[in-house]
Amino acid sequence: MLVPKHIDVRALCFDVFGTVVDWYGSVQAEVQRLALPVDGGDFALAWRAGYAPAMQDVRSGALPWTDLDGLHRRILNRLLAERGIALQEAQAAELNRVWHRLQPWPDSVTGLTKLKRRFTITTLSNGHVALLLNMAKNAGLPWDMVLSAELFGHYKPDPEVYLGAARLLGLAPAQVMMVAAHPSDLRAAAACGLRTAYVPRPQERGPGGTMEAWTAGEFDLVADDFLALAQALGAG
Amino acid sequence: MLVPKHIDVRALCFDVFGTVVDWYGSVQAEVQRLALPVDGGDFALAWRAGYAPAMQDVRSGALPWTDLDGLHRRILNRLLAERGIALQEAQAAELNRVWHRLQPWPDSVTGLTKLKRRFTITTLSNGHVALLLNMAKNAGLPWDMVLSAELFGHYKPDPEVYLGAARLLGLAPAQVMMVAAHPSDLRAAAACGLRTAYVPRPQERGPGGTMEAWTAGEFDLVADDFLALAQALGAG
Repeated sequence: MLVPKHIDVRALCFDVFGTVVDWYGSVQAEVQRLALPVDGGDFALAWRAGYAPAMQDVRSGALPWTDLDGLHRRILNRLLAERGIALQEAQAAELNRVWHRLQPWPDSVTGLTKLKRRFTITTLSNGHVALLLNMAKNAGLPWDMVLSAELFGHYKPDPEVYLGAARLLGLAPAQVMMVAAHPSDLRAAAACGLRTAYVPRPQERGPGGTMEAWTAGEFDLVADDFLALAQALGAG
Repeated sequence: MLVPKHIDVRALCFDVFGTVVDWYGSVQAEVQRLALPVDGGDFALAWRAGYAPAMQDVRSGALPWTDLDGLHRRILNRLLAERGIALQEAQAAELNRVWHRLQPWPDSVTGLTKLKRRFTITTLSNGHVALLLNMAKNAGLPWDMVLSAELFGHYKPDPEVYLGAARLLGLAPAQVMMVAAHPSDLRAAAACGLRTAYVPRPQERGPGGTMEAWTAGEFDLVADDFLALAQALGAG
């Protein structure tokens, strides 16, 4: 009889932005609420698009360690300037904190609650601890533990993040499953020996948004949402 | 009108051993269950008595960073040898993990659940993350986040632990309240600018056990248990 490779998994580590929460819809709604003279969805995409290069500047050493509030604010300032929008400092700071108030996908809280009964469930995000804690309190995400790039001084996909998570959890990498909507994150986790679950979120980048390519069979599990993931892992 | 000093507290950091869980009763019960030829209560006290000097060896640099499983095992091996008790390796390893299975005081889970509605609640313990997570899953402790000396590479009462907790929480030290059954822990937290709540646990060292001395007025709050603490903080 075939034994599934995820049989010994003890902890699930979740990517957060896009996998657990809907950054596109949340940022879009906030921009519209503020009545900024831009398309909310376009603004959300542009803000998020600045994130990978900013993080790369930290990973390469071009920028000293800067948390996500700092990176988001650098990008926001540029976007506002490019669009000729002047906000008061308090307004800009409040808008920048929208990333602390992102809303979960409809299945996130119910699915995590089921999975928590059987597994240790943690974040494993490039968001810093304070942001992830504020988000969890605001959205009702029932984490056992908040694990963040901040604890390791490295951003994903650096291996220090995945291996650091397993070490802190007191587990072998193969006892830890990374759950993400992003194949690139999962591939980096697998390269460190972690198990992988792919949960595609086709709405992540809004209507008609593109998704990373992937190949059938390259991940240990593929599930449509967290309820299906719970079912697949015997925690349904 | 007087504004209480704890008015701006956003997060509560809890000492764990003795404050949240009953190490004396839990270790005593485990030793008795194994029918070791010793008094369970005496053995618990001797094991715990080895803890402060072992940690001091790490704090002074005499011992490299060693987690609590490692320190507990060193002490256990010495205690067993002194008493002429031979355990198989698997038995000794299992006994050493009793510190992952400590039972909460009767008010702990209810009190923490109330406090969690109003505050971010975290551990702030010399126990390592894996131990604290296992304990939380086993005992049903509803932490928002597990903060540990391990994350800072320093044991309490080093200031790096208290200041590191406030930094990770994204809060000023005065927005963080340390909750402990040990005046020495609270004094070290206060020296770093944290607020303090003293919850005496007179049964911590078993019947007739001694407690650290303290002075009325030296802490921001004193509460008989976590239910009284919740009441005092408006989370009852």
